[in-house]
Formats: sequence, C-alpha cells, structure tokens
Amino acid sequence: MPDKHVFFFGGGETNGNAGMRDLLGGKGANLAEMANSGIPVPAGFTISTDVCVDFYKNGGRYPDHLKADVVSAIEKVEKTMGAKFGDPADPLLLSVRSGARVSMPGMMDTVLNLGLNLKTVEGLARKTGDERFAWDCFRRFMQMYGDVVLDMKPTDKDARDPFEEILNAKKEEVGAEQDMDLGVDDLKELVERYRAIIVEKSGVEFPEDPIEQLWNAIGAVFNSWNNDRANTYRRLNGIPDDWGTAVNVQSMVYGNLGDDSGTGVAFTRNPATGENHFYGEYLMKAQGEDVVAGIRTPRPMNRLQKGDADVPCLEDEMPEIYGELDTIRLSLEEHYRDMQDLEFTIQNRKLWILQTRAGKRTGFAAIKIAIDMVREGLITKDEAIRRLDPEQLNQFLRPVFDPGQKHRAIDEGRLMARGINAGPGAATGRIVFNAEDAEKRAVEGEGVILVRIETSPEDIRGMYAASGILTSAGGATSHAALVARQMGKVCVVGAKEISIDYRQRTIVSGGITLAEGDHISIDGTTGEVISGMIETKPSEVIQVLIDGTLDSKDSVIFRDYEELIGWANGIRTMNVRANADRPDQASAAVAFGAEGIGLCRTEHMFFEGERIDWVRRMILAVDELGRKEALSKLLPMQREDFHAIFEAMGERPVTIRTLDPPLHEFLPHKEEEIAELAGKMGVDAGWLADKVTSLKEANPMLGHRGCRLGIVYPEITEMQTRAIFEAACDLTAGGKKVRPEIMIPLVGSAKEYQLQEEVVRRVASEVMEDRGVDIEYLVGTMIEIPRAALTADAIAERAEFFSFGTNDLTQTTLGISRDDAGKFMDDYIEKGVWSVDPFQKLDQDGVGTLIKIGVEKGRGAREGLKIGICGEHGGEPSSIGFCQRTGFDYVSCSPFRIPVAILAAAQAALEGDGEGS
Amino acid sequence: MPDKHVFFFGGGETNGNAGMRDLLGGKGANLAEMANSGIPVPAGFTISTDVCVDFYKNGGRYPDHLKADVVSAIEKVEKTMGAKFGDPADPLLLSVRSGARVSMPGMMDTVLNLGLNLKTVEGLARKTGDERFAWDCFRRFMQMYGDVVLDMKPTDKDARDPFEEILNAKKEEVGAEQDMDLGVDDLKELVERYRAIIVEKSGVEFPEDPIEQLWNAIGAVFNSWNNDRANTYRRLNGIPDDWGTAVNVQSMVYGNLGDDSGTGVAFTRNPATGENHFYGEYLMKAQGEDVVAGIRTPRPMNRLQKGDADVPCLEDEMPEIYGELDTIRLSLEEHYRDMQDLEFTIQNRKLWILQTRAGKRTGFAAIKIAIDMVREGLITKDEAIRRLDPEQLNQFLRPVFDPGQKHRAIDEGRLMARGINAGPGAATGRIVFNAEDAEKRAVEGEGVILVRIETSPEDIRGMYAASGILTSAGGATSHAALVARQMGKVCVVGAKEISIDYRQRTIVSGGITLAEGDHISIDGTTGEVISGMIETKPSEVIQVLIDGTLDSKDSVIFRDYEELIGWANGIRTMNVRANADRPDQASAAVAFGAEGIGLCRTEHMFFEGERIDWVRRMILAVDELGRKEALSKLLPMQREDFHAIFEAMGERPVTIRTLDPPLHEFLPHKEEEIAELAGKMGVDAGWLADKVTSLKEANPMLGHRGCRLGIVYPEITEMQTRAIFEAACDLTAGGKKVRPEIMIPLVGSAKEYQLQEEVVRRVASEVMEDRGVDIEYLVGTMIEIPRAALTADAIAERAEFFSFGTNDLTQTTLGISRDDAGKFMDDYIEKGVWSVDPFQKLDQDGVGTLIKIGVEKGRGAREGLKIGICGEHGGEPSSIGFCQRTGFDYVSCSPFRIPVAILAAAQAALEGDGEGS
Repeated sequence: MPDKHVFFFGGGETNGNAGMRDLLGGKGANLAEMANSGIPVPAGFTISTDVCVDFYKNGGRYPDHLKADVVSAIEKVEKTMGAKFGDPADPLLLSVRSGARVSMPGMMDTVLNLGLNLKTVEGLARKTGDERFAWDCFRRFMQMYGDVVLDMKPTDKDARDPFEEILNAKKEEVGAEQDMDLGVDDLKELVERYRAIIVEKSGVEFPEDPIEQLWNAIGAVFNSWNNDRANTYRRLNGIPDDWGTAVNVQSMVYGNLGDDSGTGVAFTRNPATGENHFYGEYLMKAQGEDVVAGIRTPRPMNRLQKGDADVPCLEDEMPEIYGELDTIRLSLEEHYRDMQDLEFTIQNRKLWILQTRAGKRTGFAAIKIAIDMVREGLITKDEAIRRLDPEQLNQFLRPVFDPGQKHRAIDEGRLMARGINAGPGAATGRIVFNAEDAEKRAVEGEGVILVRIETSPEDIRGMYAASGILTSAGGATSHAALVARQMGKVCVVGAKEISIDYRQRTIVSGGITLAEGDHISIDGTTGEVISGMIETKPSEVIQVLIDGTLDSKDSVIFRDYEELIGWANGIRTMNVRANADRPDQASAAVAFGAEGIGLCRTEHMFFEGERIDWVRRMILAVDELGRKEALSKLLPMQREDFHAIFEAMGERPVTIRTLDPPLHEFLPHKEEEIAELAGKMGVDAGWLADKVTSLKEANPMLGHRGCRLGIVYPEITEMQTRAIFEAACDLTAGGKKVRPEIMIPLVGSAKEYQLQEEVVRRVASEVMEDRGVDIEYLVGTMIEIPRAALTADAIAERAEFFSFGTNDLTQTTLGISRDDAGKFMDDYIEKGVWSVDPFQKLDQDGVGTLIKIGVEKGRGAREGLKIGICGEHGGEPSSIGFCQRTGFDYVSCSPFRIPVAILAAAQAALEGDGEGS
Repeated sequence: MPDKHVFFFGGGETNGNAGMRDLLGGKGANLAEMANSGIPVPAGFTISTDVCVDFYKNGGRYPDHLKADVVSAIEKVEKTMGAKFGDPADPLLLSVRSGARVSMPGMMDTVLNLGLNLKTVEGLARKTGDERFAWDCFRRFMQMYGDVVLDMKPTDKDARDPFEEILNAKKEEVGAEQDMDLGVDDLKELVERYRAIIVEKSGVEFPEDPIEQLWNAIGAVFNSWNNDRANTYRRLNGIPDDWGTAVNVQSMVYGNLGDDSGTGVAFTRNPATGENHFYGEYLMKAQGEDVVAGIRTPRPMNRLQKGDADVPCLEDEMPEIYGELDTIRLSLEEHYRDMQDLEFTIQNRKLWILQTRAGKRTGFAAIKIAIDMVREGLITKDEAIRRLDPEQLNQFLRPVFDPGQKHRAIDEGRLMARGINAGPGAATGRIVFNAEDAEKRAVEGEGVILVRIETSPEDIRGMYAASGILTSAGGATSHAALVARQMGKVCVVGAKEISIDYRQRTIVSGGITLAEGDHISIDGTTGEVISGMIETKPSEVIQVLIDGTLDSKDSVIFRDYEELIGWANGIRTMNVRANADRPDQASAAVAFGAEGIGLCRTEHMFFEGERIDWVRRMILAVDELGRKEALSKLLPMQREDFHAIFEAMGERPVTIRTLDPPLHEFLPHKEEEIAELAGKMGVDAGWLADKVTSLKEANPMLGHRGCRLGIVYPEITEMQTRAIFEAACDLTAGGKKVRPEIMIPLVGSAKEYQLQEEVVRRVASEVMEDRGVDIEYLVGTMIEIPRAALTADAIAERAEFFSFGTNDLTQTTLGISRDDAGKFMDDYIEKGVWSVDPFQKLDQDGVGTLIKIGVEKGRGAREGLKIGICGEHGGEPSSIGFCQRTGFDYVSCSPFRIPVAILAAAQAALEGDGEGS
C-alpha cells in the first residue's frame, strides 16, 4: 500500500490528476484534473481507494498517519478558501462524498454541509446574512448525518424516514405547505427535535465537534461501499468488490448567499443542434436544485441564446463572470477535447466550477460536434469516429414529429401506450387492420398505419403501403420489426396495453377507443402511440439520398452526415452490404453506400401481384409436372426481378439466396381464400383445405424449408438459378458486368450443399452456354444451423463463401424460437439470464463460439474463404465488432442500417482484430 | 508389383491363404483357405488384384509372364481334376469369376462352362451320358460369353437381351413352355443362331479355341471392375477405385450328372434354434439352383432332421458322403470358429465343397451358438460378445406370432400394409381409435390395438392399455415409436397405405376395410399389418423376468440369455441406466439389470387419473396464488410417485428431471373438453378457449419449456423438489437408502442452471431440516441445446452431472424437428445426405463434435464430472460405442432396451476408448 492516501485539490494546485482514477476514483480524479487545469474548483481532498480496501481488511481501522494527513489537508483547504473548519466566526463547511473507479450512481452515501453545530450555524447566519438559510442548512445536515452516518434511513422502501415524519408534522402544525414556508424558529425547533430522535433511535448523541462529524462521515462512506444496494449494483455490473471507493471531502459553496450569488448549468456547445456556442441556464440567489426544479424560470447564458426574448442574461448581468466562464469553457474543451456539461456556482461574485463531464447530446449534435471538433483540430477523425454511438446515425434517416405538436398531444392525454421502438421515426395516418385495406387506402393517397396483433409474410404488401406499423404483440425482432427495419418503416411493436378487435375494427387503450379510419400517430424512436394526427416530415438525408427532393448543397445536415460517412469509409476494413430483396431496396442500399447485396431473399418477391397464385400452384402441385408448369410461369417474373436488382447494383456482388421459408407460409389459411384459390385452380375446395392442413408443421422453423426444399424439389432451385443466370446473361450481353453469388440456405452437411451446388452449376452452365456468355459467379452457403458450423471444414471444400445467418443460428444454438421467446424474455432479462435480447445483440459466448469454430474450420479447409454475416446482427454495432475480431470480410444489414454499420465497422477497425481471435 | 500373380488351389494344396484377402480378393482367399484346410474344393487358380491394377495402368496389358503362369496353373488343375482343358475326350470346363477385397454382390461379371466348343460339347455329352445337358451347357456358355465378354447385354433395362429373344422365339416355334421342353436338336439350332447373332452384333466370331475363350473372359472380368454399376457401388460404399478385382478360374463340377450326383446347402448348426447339429437340404441329380427353386422338394440331411417324416435323407442315401461332409463340418467350424453355411456338390460320388461362409441365423440361434461355442472352448467370451449384434437380444423380449398362422394369413391376402417396425414383437387385438376406448375395452379384458394417425401425450394411457399401437404417420422416432419402445409395446408406425377415418371409425388399405372392434394383427419386428387375429405369446425371458410366470430353471432360453448378460456385465465399463417414469417401469428396469434411472420424466405422471385436471388448473391459473393452490394438490400425488419409484430402485441412483414439456401439451384442445374443464374450474368457456389459444406456440420445441418454465414459475420447481425430498425423507427415515439426482432440463447458460439449482437446494434443505434427515443428492443438468455444450465449462462450475439429451440436441444441432422430418427423411436417405436416420443413430460428426466439446469443457471445469446420455441414442449400439470413446460414465435407455445396451456397452469396452477421444 502506497504511503500517500490524501490528495489535495484546489487553488490551482493538486497532487492528483485524471490518470489516477483507480486510486482517486472517477470524481476525485476529475476534481484533481480540473484543479490542475486552473479551473476554480472549491478546495478539498480525496482519501484514496486503497484506504477503503485497507479499511475492510483491517476491520474498519485506518492507516496510522491518515488522521494527521487529513488534518494537514484541512489546513490547506482552510487556507485556500479563507475560512476555518469549526470556526464560529467564519466556518468552513464541507461535503463528504463517495467516488469509485466507475460511477455507481446513487448507490453510496453523501453528507453535505458538514461542520455545522450550534455555534457555527450562527457564524454561517452572520456570514451570509441569512439566518433562515443557515438553520435550514443545519437541519438538512442533521438529517443527512442521521440517515447516512447513524443508519437511520429505513431500508424498507415503504417505511417513512423519521426526519421526514418530524418535518411533515412540523409543517402541519404551522400550516406550512412548502419547506420554504417554515420560519427560523420552526427550523430551530426542528433541529432540537432531530437531536432528540437521533438519541432515541440510534442511542448516540449528535456530535457537536466538526472533526468527529467528519470522521464519522468518512467512515459511513467507506461502509456504504458494502451496503446491499452497492453490492447488488456491483454484481449486476461486474464491478469487483475489492476496488473500494475513495472519499472526497470538499468545501461547500453557496449560490444563494445574496444578489451577487447564483448558480447554473451550461454546455460548452448547443446539445440539441451541436452548434459551437455557449449554451445554458442560471439563476441568481439560488442553489443548483432551483435551476432544475422549475419553480423559477432560469435565464439564458448569453445574448445569442436569448435572442429577442426580453429577459436578462448572464453575459449582461455579470459580464466579468461570464467572461471568466467563457474562458473556462474554451479551456475545458481544449482539455477534455469533448463538449462539456458543467455546473457552476457564483458565491459573492466568486466563480466556482462544481463539476464538468461530457455532455449528453442528440444524435445530430453528436455528429455535428464531432465533425466540428475535427475541423477545429481539437480531435482526430479516428477520435471522432470512436466517440460516436453508431445508432445516433438513425436520427438522420427518420421522419420526425413536430416536437411542439407531440408534446401538446401528450399534455392533452392522447398517449395511448408505449410499445417497443422497433422502427425509428415518426408516422401518422389512418388506422387500417389488414394489408388489403392498407393498399387500397394508400392508393387513394391516404397515409395509413397498419395495426395488427402481429404480422406475417402475407402482410408485406400492406406494410409497404403503410406509413407505419403498430403491433400489440411480438418483440424487437418479430416479423413486423424485422421487415419494418429493412423497409425503413416507422414501427412500434408489442404495445401490450392496446387491445385490438379485428371484428369490431377498433382498438382500445388508456381509456381511448379508436375505430378503423381514425387517425393515430406512432413514434418509432420512443415507442409512443398517440391518438390523432401529428405532423411529420422526412429527414434531410432521406430527402437528398432517396427522395431526391433536396439538393445536397442546400443541406448542412446532409453534408455533415456525408463527411462523417466518408471518414468511416476511410477507416473500416470490412465491407458493408445490404439485405435487399427488391430493386427499390437495392437502389436505397447503393445510395446509403452498400458495396453489394449480402442477402436477397427470393421469396419476398413471391407475394407480388399475381405471383402468389403461381407460387401456390407450385406448392400444391400433385406431381413434378404440375410443379414444373407453375415454375415455368414464375421463371420470367423472377428473371425480371433479378434483372432489375442487378441493374441497381451495377458491378457490386449480389448474393441471392435460393428459396428458404416453409412452403406453408405461402398458402392461404382462411376458408374463403382457400375456396377462391380452389376455383382458380379448378380443384375441390375440400381437397385443397386438406392439402393446406397436411403442409402444416409442428415446428416450422425446424421443418421442411431451406435447402431441404431444393433437395426434395430440385426443379425449384433449377428455376431460380435459370432466372438468375438468364437475367445476368441479358445484362452481360448488353455490356454490363454483374456478379451473382448464389447462396444455399439452411445447409447442415457437406452433402446437402453438394446436391444443391450441382444443380446450380449445371443450370448456370446450360444458360451461359445457350447464351454464349460467360459470367463470374460464386456458389456458397449460409451457416445458420449449428451442424454447419461444426462441419464447416467439409462444407468449405466446395463452398466458395460462408454467410452466417445469425437469426436462425441464434434460434438453434439457444434452442429458442424468437416468435415464442416473448413468454419468458422479460423474466430472463430481469433475472439476469441475458443482459440483452440475444436476437438483437449477438450472443458472443454461445453463438459466437460456434461462429469461431465455423470460421476456423472453414478457412482451414479453404484458405481465404470469403465470410460474411447476414442476420439482423449484421447491423448491430457490438456484433459488428465481433465480426471484425473474428476476421469477417463483410457484414450485411438492412439498407436503412447501412450508415450505422459503416460507422460501427470503422469503430471495429479502430478497436483492432486482436482480442477475439 | 510382386512377381507372383497366379495362385493355385485344390487337391489339398495351395499358394494362398485367408490372410491374403487384399491380393486374392475375398473369394480367392477363401478358396485358398479351404484348400489349405484339406476341404475338397474344385481345383483352380486366382489371378491377383495387382494384375487388375496393372491392367488399368498399362491400358489393358498383362504382365509379361502371366500367360505362362496361367498355362502352368491350368496344367496343375488338369492334373488335380483328371481332365484336360479343351480335350474333346474328357474336357475340363472352367468358371471365371471376379472377386474383390470386399464383396460387391452382382456388380461384376461371371462366365460359366468355359471351354466348350463344337468338339468338347460332344465329349461332355459322352462323359455325362446326357447329350441334352451338354448342349444346354454350351448354349448357356455362348450366351454368357456374348453378354459378358462381347458386351452384348443391353445397358438399357427395358431392352431385351438378344439371346433371350432368340431363345423365346425358338420356344414359340416348337411350342415349348419351359427351357426344359427344348430337345437336343432345338438346342443345337440355338447354338447356331447364337453364333450368327454374335457375329452380327459384335462383329467378331465366337472363338472355338478354349484358351482364347479363357483370356477374353479374364479380360472381361477385369474390365467389369470399371463398369457403371461397379463404379456407383464403390462410390456409395466408399470402396477405393484402385483396389482392383482378382479373377478366380475354377473347375466346373456338376451335381446333375446322374443318380450318383447331387447338390445341397447345409449349416453346421441349426440356424433357427442354434442347436449343434448338422442341418440342411439336398437333391440328387440336380444343380444348385434346383435346391432353391422349389420345383422339387429337397430332402433333409440326416435322421435327426427328418424326424418321423417318410423321406430319404443323405445320411441314409449316401452314408460315406454324409460322413465325409460331417467331418468337413467339424473341421470348418474348428477352422472358422463360427457356424458355417456351405454349398456342396456330389459329382459321380465325389464330394466337392463349392463355398463356405458364416451362416445367417436368428437372434436366438446367434446367442445359443455363441454361448455353446464358448462352452465348447471354440471361442472366448470376448469373442462371443464381439460377434453378436446387440439388437438380436430384442428377440428374447418380444411376444411372437405363431409363424404358421401368420404365413397362412398372408397367403390368404390379409396383409394390409408394411410400416416401420418401431416396437418389435407381435400383437393382435380389436381396433380402437382413441385412448379412452382403449382403456375401456382393456378393462373389459379385451386385447386392443390403438390405431391413430399419430399419437400425443394425451394418448399415453391408451397406449398403456393397448396390446399394440399402429400409426399411419410418423417415423421411427415419432411420439408413438418412442413411447412404445419405452413401454416395450409392439408398435408399427408410418403405415402410409392405411387411410384412417376417425369419423367413420374405419381403416382402409390393400382393398380391405376394417371397422372399430374388428381384429387386426401387427408385427412390430417386420412392420407387417394383417387383418384378423393371429395368436401370440410372451417371450420366455419376459415370462421369467417380468411376468414371473415361468421359473428360470425351466427355461433354457432364459438361462442362455442370463449367461450372456453376465459375460457382458463382466466386460463393460460404462454403467447402464433406464429411462423410467413409473414404478412398474422402474421394476422392469431393475429386472433387466439397470443400475439406476438416468431419466425420470416427471410430466409423464401428470396424465394419470385426476391429476391432469390439477395440472391444467396450475397452467391456467391467473396468478401465482392460483398456481400454488393447484401445485399443492399435485404435491402429494408426485410424492407418492417418487416414493414408489425410489422403493423400486433401492440404493440405485434415480435421476429426476423437473418439468420439461411446453404447458400447451397438457391442455385440452377440443371444444367439448374445454367446456368440461371450464365447468370444473368455474370459468367461462370462451375465456378458457382464448387462454388455451394464447398458450399455443409457433415452434413449441423451441418455446417456453424446460427450465424456462421453472425460471418463470419457480413454484413448480419448488413443488417438484418438495415432492422428491419428502418421499426420499420418508424412505430414509424408514431405514432405506435413496439417491436422488435432480436434473434441470433445457439449460442454455450457467445462469439458468444457477437459478434453478438455487431453488432445488433451498427446498431440499428446508425439507431435510424439517424432517431431520440428511440425504446425499446431486443436482445436475441436461445438455440438450448447443449453447449448453458450448458453455459447458461455466455450467459445470455448479452442475454435478451432465446428461446429454441427444433427442433435443440432435433437433437443435441439425435444425430439424423430428416431428416434421418425415417430409424429407426418405429423400435425404435416398440421396445420401444421411446414411441413417440421425434420430436413431447418433450423428457423430455433428452432434458428436458438440458432445465432445461439452465433455471436454465440462470436465475441464470439474474434474471427474459424471456424464451420461439419456436420449434415445442411449440404447443404440453405435451411439453407445461413441459414448464409451468419449468417456461417458453411463448410458440410459428404455427398460426394454437395457439388454441391448448392456451388450453394446460390453462391445464398446472391448473396442476400447482410443479412437474417438
């Protein structure tokens, strides 16, 4: 254990610095750092974490010379602050706070106003000229001391704090509504009552000696490291028990000492827009809580911020203080190289900075600040990239509600429910309950919100037509959420409070009943569901990139976005591809910067127009001949699709997956639909109904799907291959270059892969020979069931690429159907089985281990095997980090996730490949 | 390449032996071995496989001195046989046959009667005194020569052989029905027509020179190594192309040369019963095919075999030949140390042995022979164990049909279908279509066959009541098959031809319609379904061990069985446990030699009596209180179950799995059942129906089941733990020792295991403290989803044992629902994706790899971790071998599989642990 345990800070002098976080705790290191940088922090000292560790080892005893060190530190504080601890004439008051290596907000204890007693309270009253203030401080201190040091705060949440009870009784006696209504005499009496209850409950006297107060408070803070809340918090957050906490003892300063005192909170830049100007609020003759409490309206910092408003601002009221603050602002940013959120107090025209930390900001602001700071030379591009949360880029893509209108709606009681924010953005429109109505109304030019208990592939056209999707069931990776994200649709799922009645065509929630055709508004960024209309507008980035309704040079936001993406592109080493099934999705993907398609699900095209009829005929064919006839009708349609997608993608690789879902998904299930189809097919409706039933599966996820379809019905794979290569040949003959990559789904063994690969290569050769065209193409496979990863060496002998389908791989590796996980998901997260939904963030311990086995075995058998990911995790930053460390060549995600993936890939590249492989 | 290419055999002299299989091929090595042992084989020689390899390398050329070697070998054959190749006076005729290292039946070519021409045919006629025979041989030889050597056999299956066409035309001309009806002149003319067609089709003359015939035939056999059929066969069976085939040239002998000639087939012991006496059939003046053809009735070998029948036997007809044969029989067994199946020909009172090989036998015979041979000192116990197929032990356990009655029924056209033989044995009874009727009729003392499209847990009571179970859907591991095997019930599943109409209460198949109450018979050993009654009887082993209706000393069969099991128990190193859910199953398991229960599924008890009502109330409870009330009703019932099971198992460990299946499985689904339950519960039927629907899952296999139930509803685990420990305490207090092992199902992470383990240990401590009793117990987990194996190190930190649940582990690792695999299973096996159903034999490459990871990680974290298997594979011999190699402590299987598992475990122990780990 080092010799030095007490670290002074203040008056531009200190023994510590920001690098000493382990020893001084986060808060202590930060205070030292500020003092070091000449920031006027109220003087104080930090007792190091190793004293805490030692304290526990030695049964609550302190190191020998600690007392002496503290005494000498107090003397230094007294000298710096010009007041004396325990001096009735000019009392120095102290705060005593915990401060661990990492923040454990609210878990440990704090004591304020320490040093007050019956004598110093009078000194404080004289010094501040505010007797009421002094006695109120004293009363508060006694309560904190009793609660924290003497452990009088009840642990049972429902039990009342004895001090609160006395306070309330007193207020009732004198008819006071607020604490503020109590007079000096009331407060004096409270102090006496507090003193009595302390003796009664704890059996000890309240100590008048400030030094005794101090040591007891320090001991209490050390003890609070081991209270139940703190222990639980550490266990949940994986913080070792033996880190210990530091104790920070700091001079109190007051912003409510008179007209030349005040307090405020400020940001070094605008946290909403990111603009580089001082931005904040303050109140004169006030304490910090008054600024937040909202009883008095705080004032703007400066003229710029105040604009035309007829209010004072600090720049005018106290120009010299404002000037000092503005200088500090610049030096803080220079020092911390980030936008800071600082708290300050002006005590009798003397400025004190109480705290500074990185300021919270919107996505827009985060990006603007990062970009500006690079331009200002404050940080490097790498730092800018590292610092951002990739998810913040979503804010650039989503339509937004007019904020004023939305708040008004909520104030009016129109909030119906909060669901899961599955597709960020804002949408408003008329309620419809099924895909057909959605399409019909949309064609008529109306914005609609498709409201379903849950969605299925049959709803896809309706989801396309709708402005937004709202479901009452399902989770963040339900069908609705998945498809909505891919489409870039606003979507709220799992809004459980909403009860949907399809027959009555109404929804009920929060006392509000809405019928079909009524307006509803959903905020997919927050999950809020609000009745009635709220205006929205597309984001500027979308207007430039997708809609083409805005010129990039007219959008500062877009240019910022573009610059940032450019930097990320320069840094990242993995490619970013899109999961795109349609030409418009492909175009959007390219606009967002996709370098190829990582997953084109051919079956999503099957629902368009009349195709579904032919798909159904194919499925229901009684023999190969019937199946081939239906397939021959589908061939030209699929060829057209692929033609358009290839065209949109240019020379970029396009990975096309052969038919994957269980055939049952394509069939009609309602009696009248079956009857209609039977009519079209000229078969008996009863026979058809039986056939539909016979295709039902106990566990469709694990049933007859994926390559199992193509192996039993090779003619399906043949048709799809033919469509792909006919389209590719057409374009190649026209002088274009295309790069198809055929991907076989749900492979579990080398033999399955081989059987399908043979079909693909045979048909590809036939088509190319027919057309006299030669096309470079790859054949590869998805790795989405555990056995594929476990036998990846055998599969890679033939497969030219692997694409990890982490949706299904997560389902099979965890043995969890994501459609059914809702029944226990909440319990599992609450009980700590999962820290996060494994369908959102890749389960690196389980699924990740399997992926590593797959990569290792695959590359062992085929050097340089191309490896990607096309599950939902391909657009999720922590999972992208895993892919980088595991040596992936690319990630693939929904078009609208591409900016996020680009930024995450750049961050992953900066993190390096080392740790995981 | 070695110098020696031609290996003579015959006349008690030879250059080869049985160890030279690689060089001489299987047949050649065997002929050499027989010649070596003084067996009178017709003389001949083998051209070694390396000549074939060389032949292909050198474009069809032979080694330099091969011709000379062959000529000198022929001279030796001539000398031994006393005839001359090509000598018109006394022609030696030869056969030319392929013979690879391993048998490739029917894939390569053979030429018989080689050496005939217009001169030697006359010699043969004179020598045999049978002109017709001689010309018929010649005609046949020409056809074989044309087909094989000149490649005239059409490759298209539908095309006719030109020789057959000529033969048929001739028969039509002369009005002959059979080949036998053709006279000498007809045959002579056929020879000329054959000669003409040979020139016409092949462009070459039929060679009169026997030496030319011989070389061409040898070349043809070498060439046939590379024909399409042979290539395909090799690819499918993994036989290397570069092994090559040997060619065997051997003297022809004839059993039809007159009254002192004959031919026969014999077994050195009785292949049906295993009794140690000569057993076989022969015909005088006949060729081998006549014995098999069934036109003439063959005669028994000896007096013992003939019994009271009034027919001649070889022992009487030709006592000296019979004596010679009987001597050969003993020397063959001594030499090959196994029961042999031999073919012999008597040519003019001279005995020739044409072939000997290990004889096929029934399970009974196999075991009796193995035991007898050990007793005779012919083989060791280890050899006896190694040689048996463990599945043969099943024949000791199954009731059997009276064979005569069954054949008669099939002859009468009563065979309705052939399904999958899922539960061996024979059962006959009246048709019922549901569990209730099965129970009702069974109570009335009637044997019933439960006929269902497929079964579900609701049918279990009916399955118990039934004598046999027949389903039209599902595979070898369907619910019906699985439960039937565990119960030891006769069962045929997937009898697709049968169409079941529940409403009409009829089944239709093969033109037969049966109604409810009609008799039906099913043979679970063969899969046959037969209308009407056939008598059955329980096996003697069952009569002794389970029924107690037969004293072991009165059953030779039982004593043989017992002795064999005793040997196996002495050899094996893994323990064998049973999967048993009920006291009667536990008793049966002990009777069969189980050393504990490896899997007791608590939920199987849930369907008994009134329990299901309380189970349903528990599931449908709206809150924890309601759930606890229902659980309190179930507690005493479960306690009783466990009490009885513990009692049956004595000191043996009993592994009890906490609740596993999706709750939905316990609920009623029919409207009237729901209404009835609603009545009992006093709730609205509509509400109940909604509740039942809301519990439905998209993929129940991957849904809210296993420990996920116990984690969301810990009170269920609490109740089950309490029931287990209350029962255990009762017995312990009564002076008995019990060893409960609590097993948590479907664990996917250490945290899940911990949450459930905490509940179990807490409740166990509570109960033991209450009762003042201390019980040794273990808590462990099933490893049945991939993530559990991948994170086995973390799980093993707390878990005291692992039991691999390979049913679910196979489903998740392969991503295949076994309930749905039927749709592609046949295609997959046909196309070679699987060589065998992975739900029957463990997929060692995929699932096995995961198991090895789990074992390694588990034992890495906890030395000596106890490891077992309780999936269906635990009773399957090849999977048991895997368990041995992977270091398992025990296997667990259905009670009725225990004998098989014991034998397989002994075999596995003999194989050793080396290769797999």
